[in-house]
Amino acid sequence: MAERITPRKENYSQWYVDIVIQAKLADYSPVKGCMVIRPRGYALWEKMQQTLDRMFKETGHQNAYFPLLIPESFIKREAEHIEGFSPELAIVTHAGGEKLEEPLVLRPTSETIIWSMYKKWIQSYRDLPLLINQWANVLRWEKRTRMFLRTTEFLWQEGHTAHSSEEEAREETLRMLEVYRDFAENYMAMPVLTGIKSESEKFAGAVNTYSLEAMMQDRKALQAGTSHFLGQNFAKAFDVTYQTAEGSIDHVWATSWGVSTRLIGALIMTHSDDKGLIIPPKLAPIEGVIIPIFKSSNKEEVLGYAREVLSAMKQEIRVEIDEDEQNSPGWKFSEWEMVGVPLRVEIGPRDMEARKVVLVRRDTGEKIPVAGEEVTRTAKALLDDIQQSLFERARKFREENYHRLDTYKDLRKLFESEGGFVEAHWCGDPDCEGKIKDDTKATIRVLLDRKPVDGAVCIACSKPASQVAVFSKAY
Amino acid sequence: MAERITPRKENYSQWYVDIVIQAKLADYSPVKGCMVIRPRGYALWEKMQQTLDRMFKETGHQNAYFPLLIPESFIKREAEHIEGFSPELAIVTHAGGEKLEEPLVLRPTSETIIWSMYKKWIQSYRDLPLLINQWANVLRWEKRTRMFLRTTEFLWQEGHTAHSSEEEAREETLRMLEVYRDFAENYMAMPVLTGIKSESEKFAGAVNTYSLEAMMQDRKALQAGTSHFLGQNFAKAFDVTYQTAEGSIDHVWATSWGVSTRLIGALIMTHSDDKGLIIPPKLAPIEGVIIPIFKSSNKEEVLGYAREVLSAMKQEIRVEIDEDEQNSPGWKFSEWEMVGVPLRVEIGPRDMEARKVVLVRRDTGEKIPVAGEEVTRTAKALLDDIQQSLFERARKFREENYHRLDTYKDLRKLFESEGGFVEAHWCGDPDCEGKIKDDTKATIRVLLDRKPVDGAVCIACSKPASQVAVFSKAY
Repeated sequence: MAERITPRKENYSQWYVDIVIQAKLADYSPVKGCMVIRPRGYALWEKMQQTLDRMFKETGHQNAYFPLLIPESFIKREAEHIEGFSPELAIVTHAGGEKLEEPLVLRPTSETIIWSMYKKWIQSYRDLPLLINQWANVLRWEKRTRMFLRTTEFLWQEGHTAHSSEEEAREETLRMLEVYRDFAENYMAMPVLTGIKSESEKFAGAVNTYSLEAMMQDRKALQAGTSHFLGQNFAKAFDVTYQTAEGSIDHVWATSWGVSTRLIGALIMTHSDDKGLIIPPKLAPIEGVIIPIFKSSNKEEVLGYAREVLSAMKQEIRVEIDEDEQNSPGWKFSEWEMVGVPLRVEIGPRDMEARKVVLVRRDTGEKIPVAGEEVTRTAKALLDDIQQSLFERARKFREENYHRLDTYKDLRKLFESEGGFVEAHWCGDPDCEGKIKDDTKATIRVLLDRKPVDGAVCIACSKPASQVAVFSKAY
Repeated sequence: MAERITPRKENYSQWYVDIVIQAKLADYSPVKGCMVIRPRGYALWEKMQQTLDRMFKETGHQNAYFPLLIPESFIKREAEHIEGFSPELAIVTHAGGEKLEEPLVLRPTSETIIWSMYKKWIQSYRDLPLLINQWANVLRWEKRTRMFLRTTEFLWQEGHTAHSSEEEAREETLRMLEVYRDFAENYMAMPVLTGIKSESEKFAGAVNTYSLEAMMQDRKALQAGTSHFLGQNFAKAFDVTYQTAEGSIDHVWATSWGVSTRLIGALIMTHSDDKGLIIPPKLAPIEGVIIPIFKSSNKEEVLGYAREVLSAMKQEIRVEIDEDEQNSPGWKFSEWEMVGVPLRVEIGPRDMEARKVVLVRRDTGEKIPVAGEEVTRTAKALLDDIQQSLFERARKFREENYHRLDTYKDLRKLFESEGGFVEAHWCGDPDCEGKIKDDTKATIRVLLDRKPVDGAVCIACSKPASQVAVFSKAY
């Protein structure tokens, strides 16, 4: 058991892969760059989906489904869009035994196919806003892949909205960024930094891209979601106009925003330890597991009591019981720790006699003896506390590894040693951004929403600063 | 308004298309044979998914996700499978700017990719049964397409299970057939005939295919779902063996089963009328719509009362209010009838004064005045009754159009006139099945689970009968 997961200090990348494989979240598939999401991984995705879907609906969005296949000519209509996506496209050339007249692209994202439909659906200001989301698979042919973090095919949601004014579209862009922040922090227990992307890092076809950046345990950044203000770029590419309330004709304003199964990778790397996966309770498919400890002589009594506890807890908690008789309790402890169940409920013969149980926290290992009739209430309070503690631990880690630097020497030194997030002043010149990337492998993760102090200078060139940027190496 | 939907008697196919388009369930896409599922259609699919997903989980299944792209060589491993699917495949030949070494097929169904993984996951009887379901998009290049009923890309679920014995796999095949029947009859309010398919109609790669067949309002059959007993065909094609409890090695036994967005087409054609869509309450995204009727002089009072009714009903019913002031109440009545909301709640000034409302059933048009404090209770009872009535109406229609025939002359005559389901004796010879298809366009929908009576003869050749078959023209 103990050998199965490589410790983080020894090999962080291998630790990650070990957790994915051993906790049965996903597996390699026979298709290059594609993975299989196994039931334990998919159950986690379902919990994420349910929560996000509710949040999207509460903010007025409806789900729909658009075709996987996009005519190649559509992708080419928006100049920046095709430039960004063309190296990653997978193309269907033959179907039904014949060569296609026009090749079809497997969607890498759906702006083009969706805006070709919005042209049909939008005529007047009364058709706006149009607030649609899609849950779908997308394909991007990646050279270097890593399970959940970067795969050729992945699952995601993509929101695509149409508005009658720039102001409203900009509000929507920020509203969905905030929905994502709420989800990341309050469900995934993962603190995120939000801000705007620099020109070189923005979405191909966007006017502005906003991003959520989380810090992994190796101090690298992971982009956890993006929300784009698309201006009128796609409306112009697909000639989508509407009649305003005043009777004039104008192009429609747009946003798009998405998160993907990449969030599962982010969750793993934010919380897990050398024993395996740790899942924040709110997203845990199983919040607690009861492990009865018995011999053949007291089996019926212990199991009887454990099942009583199960049925009491079940009313309010997603709980299971592991009655398997082939594996020892110790083996089971390790196994359920590895798959990340937040709370273990140990019930042995002495617990049974005293009508007690022992609760064990996955995050700290702390053991809490509790009277049987108190178990549900205590377990609920502990789950809340685990949720909060995981967030606090991650927040503290990020703060410890967040540096405000003023000199290029310090910047280089940091990224040559342990790394982290670096807040620094930037002049706004892509050459300085490029130089930093070349020298340190760190990129601008986000630009913060505040102006540099008077007299501040760019960390790379010492010219007057126009932006406060956060730099980091990233996934 | 009234002109928008072609009456069934005038042109049944056009009536169907009109409902799909005008109720905004789906729209044509720019990609041949692919449709866009619009929010109203997708909301219906979500209700179906939620119900089926719960039923699958209650019967022990877990969800997972397998790659869309399948190596072409995999599809070829099972001889019947490739023969059946090869004309319908869409093929990716280029990706990431390069020609692929091996072409990749877009999944038409996932037996092959899934069984290639089951080989990794199954070693011992302790790994069985393996009960996995997948919600996914699939692609079959169809020559002639029709929205929801037959599209190049469609959404579905596919269950794929692995078992240690033939008996257990056969039980699973029938268990899932029964889950589908339960769903069709008790949620879709759509009576179905279940039975086994003849050799010529079974799934490519199955030992036996079981099917659910529903009768549409034009008396044609629609195959609403299938459950396959796959024997050891795929286990042998992918060399999936396991160690039995006794220590010997055996190939694994398999099933697969699926239903798709085709069910939306079945639902439309089972219940709807010339006013538009009719949705059974259990699957209706909106069960009731409140339409306040007011003038500017009494607007606030009527709206105030209508909102009171709304908040009372909302506790127990999925209900919305239409406060739009640009359209007349009559326009709204037609519009909400067209989109299939089961119950309308009319509230005018006199209703307000008397603290009453008028409930109107979508299925019968019946108006039921009811006191305000009784509205939720009465509405709930009416929704139950509508659900039941829709089923009864469909069942009665099917029974009226179900014929037990003995002579070939009667069989031909029926399919030359109004058509329907014909129960008749069959010798089991594919030549007789083929002759009937050539002469009447009717195919064997299912073979019933009972033996012919003594002395019964084949309706086509008059040789001794071995089967009781149900024939029909079909979608």
